[in-house]
Amino acid sequence: MPWELPRDLDTPALVVDLGRLEANLASMASHAATAGVALQPHAKTHKSVEIARRQRAHGAHGLTVATVGEAEVFATAGFDDLFVAYPLLPTGPKATRLRAVGDLARVRVGVAAPEAAPLLARALDATTRAQVLVELDAGHHRTGVSPEEAVAVARACADAGLEVVGVFTHPGHVYGGPGAAAGAAADEARVLAEGAQRLAHAGFEPRVLSGGSTPTARLAAPPATDRWAHEQRPGSYVFNDRIQCALGAAVPDQVATVVAATVVARGPGGRFVIDAGSKALGAERVDYLVGFGEVVDGGGAGGPGSVVTRLSEHHGTVETIREPPAPGTVVAVVPNHVCPVVDHFDEYLVADGGEIVDRWPVDARGRLA
Amino acid sequence: MPWELPRDLDTPALVVDLGRLEANLASMASHAATAGVALQPHAKTHKSVEIARRQRAHGAHGLTVATVGEAEVFATAGFDDLFVAYPLLPTGPKATRLRAVGDLARVRVGVAAPEAAPLLARALDATTRAQVLVELDAGHHRTGVSPEEAVAVARACADAGLEVVGVFTHPGHVYGGPGAAAGAAADEARVLAEGAQRLAHAGFEPRVLSGGSTPTARLAAPPATDRWAHEQRPGSYVFNDRIQCALGAAVPDQVATVVAATVVARGPGGRFVIDAGSKALGAERVDYLVGFGEVVDGGGAGGPGSVVTRLSEHHGTVETIREPPAPGTVVAVVPNHVCPVVDHFDEYLVADGGEIVDRWPVDARGRLA
Repeated sequence: MPWELPRDLDTPALVVDLGRLEANLASMASHAATAGVALQPHAKTHKSVEIARRQRAHGAHGLTVATVGEAEVFATAGFDDLFVAYPLLPTGPKATRLRAVGDLARVRVGVAAPEAAPLLARALDATTRAQVLVELDAGHHRTGVSPEEAVAVARACADAGLEVVGVFTHPGHVYGGPGAAAGAAADEARVLAEGAQRLAHAGFEPRVLSGGSTPTARLAAPPATDRWAHEQRPGSYVFNDRIQCALGAAVPDQVATVVAATVVARGPGGRFVIDAGSKALGAERVDYLVGFGEVVDGGGAGGPGSVVTRLSEHHGTVETIREPPAPGTVVAVVPNHVCPVVDHFDEYLVADGGEIVDRWPVDARGRLA
Repeated sequence: MPWELPRDLDTPALVVDLGRLEANLASMASHAATAGVALQPHAKTHKSVEIARRQRAHGAHGLTVATVGEAEVFATAGFDDLFVAYPLLPTGPKATRLRAVGDLARVRVGVAAPEAAPLLARALDATTRAQVLVELDAGHHRTGVSPEEAVAVARACADAGLEVVGVFTHPGHVYGGPGAAAGAAADEARVLAEGAQRLAHAGFEPRVLSGGSTPTARLAAPPATDRWAHEQRPGSYVFNDRIQCALGAAVPDQVATVVAATVVARGPGGRFVIDAGSKALGAERVDYLVGFGEVVDGGGAGGPGSVVTRLSEHHGTVETIREPPAPGTVVAVVPNHVCPVVDHFDEYLVADGGEIVDRWPVDARGRLA
């Protein structure tokens, strides 16, 4: 089913299809329930209190966030189980802010270096139940330590007065290309189990093995055991995007969010220009996709073969094998990676049956710190 | 002189050095005054009422903006001479908003297609002095028409009741690489002169020849004549960035804005990871630079040879030939392209002599429509 945009949009605009969003939420919740996995979805994708409430209504246990700023937004909105899945080194204002969040919600925090332990302990202080998860590197080679190194990090945490409740990883190498999902999911499961075992042998009591990415979410997690629970932290599944489709984690009918843009000019050779550029679509590229986004609705130009191949800040140049639409036509663009795109907008226009039925703020937009 | 960051920053943060900013403003203003060029700087770079006021204090005639949303912000703040240097096709809400801006300020608008003329005329309506400039393509091949085609666009505008006051172009091909500036500046001057002459021969009275980009701003414009005035619309010069330095349009001491980030982990092989990712630094790349940004301050890692080579949303991986700084160190990163970076932040931290002396809102942040 193609995208059908509402009329009279003031472009560029971020449009979410309510039916597709709800279907995506229900599908992942159902998978988690069947697999015996706790769902702690990553709110960095949507940054929306309304969507987080819908995730909770579908059975999510808590929320994952990337920053203290995001934690502030969701704690203030009443979410009392937050995991900052990021190796924070809170000093100065950030330490004060993290402590204030800890007064509103149970906050678990990631830790990937011994140096972070005393800073986290000071920020979360002794009166809070200061819980940390040790970050493991499952093959993405970004942050995180090996299962062997996890013991030293956990010891530094314990020495600082923090409670080590488990291990977590993000198998980001799944985004290397189509075909990477099965291997990345296996890496995730293996490294989490090894890390938890190492911690258990060293006298810790890991209770949570936390993995997560949308492409691996349905592949990675074995069911919970008596010893520990598995949780998953997928983010992009709520909306999906061009990368998720390319990796086989979604089909085009599951893309719930697009950028609406107006055709402002036609060029030679089947090119046309839209009023969504890098400030709307982001400039993220991957080796396995041409360009920055794909046009899926808009006159005759919607569908495979209409790709945003060049970006300025407020211009996107589309090359198409179809008939370029007339200036003034509004088109729908599926971005490569939806998460940073959302951060460019103040609100979602919520569409249902081709009508705008609501507007939701991007509550945690720009909460980078 | 290296960057010196203030202490106790809550990262990632956007930091502007007041002395360097003022020097950049003064230098471009002085060039324009000497060259007899009207300076109509592009506010899409800074999106800041405070910086726009400083530009005006240095002699800027008016402001250039990219969107109606930016025009709304600056018109409301009292700027009464605005040029929307973009080929708008205002329909629906945007037409209503453009008219409201026209009640607050003299608004000139770009036009690049005959189809736009009736829409602009309706939006700006007959009571306003509805002035347009025809966009010319100087070699960037994005939007804009040839000098020959400009006459047809101008006729459509006149037929719709719009006043055609001149021509404009953005020689964006200057960003193709080092060495492109002289050719792009010559293209700009040539196409503006040809376009104006064609319009004059067709019975129009072009009064403004408007060009602009930071790398060409000091090269392109011949002085004003009795027949028409030249104006320049540079944007990035207020801050400069890694691309401006690579193109020879600035030297490192003229980089006035950086992203401050905290080292959160060290990796093998001299890598370290900072808490500024694509949501802070943008993901824009150019062929003639490695990576996404360069670290210029922070422990021993500041200086040539420390490059952000990989980005996630909240992680930047830096490869360095220097000693990787300890976790917790705050570093200064010069982004590739500063304009989209500013749009990721709500405020500037204004630094002077290593102290934060003020905070300025990014007033037009996210005003994409």
